[in-house]
Amino acid sequence: MEQKRILCVGLVCLDIINVVDKFPEEDTDTRCVSQRWQRGGNASNSCTVLSLLGAPCAFMGSLAAGPIADFIVGDFSRRGVDISAVAWQPRGETPCACCIVCQMSGSRTVVLYDTNLPDVCAADFSKLDLSRFQWIHFEGRNADEQVKMIQQVRSYNATQEEKNRITVSVEIEKTRPSIYQLFSHGDVVFVSKDVAMHFGYQSASSALRGFYSRVKNGASLICAWAEKGADAMDPDGTVLHSDAFPPENLVDTLGAGDTFNAAVIHSLASGGSLQEALTFGCQIAGKKCGVHGYDGIAERKQS
Amino acid sequence: MEQKRILCVGLVCLDIINVVDKFPEEDTDTRCVSQRWQRGGNASNSCTVLSLLGAPCAFMGSLAAGPIADFIVGDFSRRGVDISAVAWQPRGETPCACCIVCQMSGSRTVVLYDTNLPDVCAADFSKLDLSRFQWIHFEGRNADEQVKMIQQVRSYNATQEEKNRITVSVEIEKTRPSIYQLFSHGDVVFVSKDVAMHFGYQSASSALRGFYSRVKNGASLICAWAEKGADAMDPDGTVLHSDAFPPENLVDTLGAGDTFNAAVIHSLASGGSLQEALTFGCQIAGKKCGVHGYDGIAERKQS
Repeated sequence: MEQKRILCVGLVCLDIINVVDKFPEEDTDTRCVSQRWQRGGNASNSCTVLSLLGAPCAFMGSLAAGPIADFIVGDFSRRGVDISAVAWQPRGETPCACCIVCQMSGSRTVVLYDTNLPDVCAADFSKLDLSRFQWIHFEGRNADEQVKMIQQVRSYNATQEEKNRITVSVEIEKTRPSIYQLFSHGDVVFVSKDVAMHFGYQSASSALRGFYSRVKNGASLICAWAEKGADAMDPDGTVLHSDAFPPENLVDTLGAGDTFNAAVIHSLASGGSLQEALTFGCQIAGKKCGVHGYDGIAERKQS
Repeated sequence: MEQKRILCVGLVCLDIINVVDKFPEEDTDTRCVSQRWQRGGNASNSCTVLSLLGAPCAFMGSLAAGPIADFIVGDFSRRGVDISAVAWQPRGETPCACCIVCQMSGSRTVVLYDTNLPDVCAADFSKLDLSRFQWIHFEGRNADEQVKMIQQVRSYNATQEEKNRITVSVEIEKTRPSIYQLFSHGDVVFVSKDVAMHFGYQSASSALRGFYSRVKNGASLICAWAEKGADAMDPDGTVLHSDAFPPENLVDTLGAGDTFNAAVIHSLASGGSLQEALTFGCQIAGKKCGVHGYDGIAERKQS
């Protein structure tokens, strides 16, 4: 029997990364130092990491046929990510982000276009064979529809014995009120530092205490806080912590959050404790910050 | 017999045009109003215009296989431009420019990467069957090699009777000293306002008088000056002028210079006088500034 997969539902886009010496002034021509195309999007990045960690995984999101989609499909395939659940849209364009990464200041400026491609909807989701999945992770986007998808998973779980039930995780990363309804729908809930600070919290642990009333009974709530590491609150209300594992040289933080999420999910899905998962998440996210892209994040140091 | 073509040698790249309300600040995320992919590069744009004007044409430049090249090849094909002379490079990447067009200020900011794809060289050029072409236009780039290509054309012409000889035009657009050697190699020489101003000239006519000693005997020298129209100096040293033909609404000036060049070449190649070509160039370039992209520039107004 095929090993059950981890499914990530959310955005995939093309990131065109322009590395410059100095951020360009308006109305000038700049020659960049280097340029690379990279598959981006939170759920899409998490799939890359799951795959590198050795977890069979699948991506579900929208694509529109064309040269951007060709590049993306090629890259998913190179990483061994199953994309049979992709919703191919007859209208709209696959989103593309032009990123300007400035070597001197370390800044990253993003110009994103992602307005005209329809999101995956509950009707698309209902076509999935849920028995293929052990875990489904939702990057919070079109939350009204995503809540309906999660209800489909709950109905499926109600017909299954314990060992076949699907765990649901959600990521609340953007400060968009409609997305906050997802707090109450995950077995594991990731909330971002951005959202926490938007609500006035100054640390991961205070954010966890503040948000915990929003999650459902039995859920775990997790909040990463960049170089301060990450905290988690288990279903008993105990707050756990892991320090960060910063690399010797910080070279690329793009996708570090998506890496953390994937590593936590991988650990929990393999039977790890919440503390183990939290520590593993920080370790792998730290490694990621020490390399360009994702290659090498799963390699163990020679000891 | 196949009608002889006009060949344009130079750059093709992908322009990703991001339209924004306001130029982004460093280290922020901006959602753009719209985004479009457009085939760009001077020689490439001139081919589009020649094709729309009904002139059989061909493009020669470098491409590297991949999704950018797929997009570019598809667009050339849609325009009916012959690309059998393209030099497919085994190394490097097809250049891509991220352009940020600001609706409020009208500014256009370009971040271009075009350093690692080898240019077309004289050895590539020597593989062409020159009998297929009536005119070859060079966008000044790797001028040392381009001078060798022009020498190949001269050698070919020396073996042909008058009616089969190929006319050579060159464009000197960038302020790069190595390119200035091309002045003496064109039968028709386009010099840009940028280069003229770099040399301290304040008008097209003074630039023509200043540069004329650089062109070879019998050559025509042409200088367009945006909304002031364009001037040309014929082989007798007479200065001709055409006013600009501004559109009712200025909507997009990207590629207006390439349009001017193509329209002038088309007119001269069809037997028009230098004055006729100059006026036609200004008319078509003016139409181009009134439309997004190039569609519609060759349509006549109902009278």
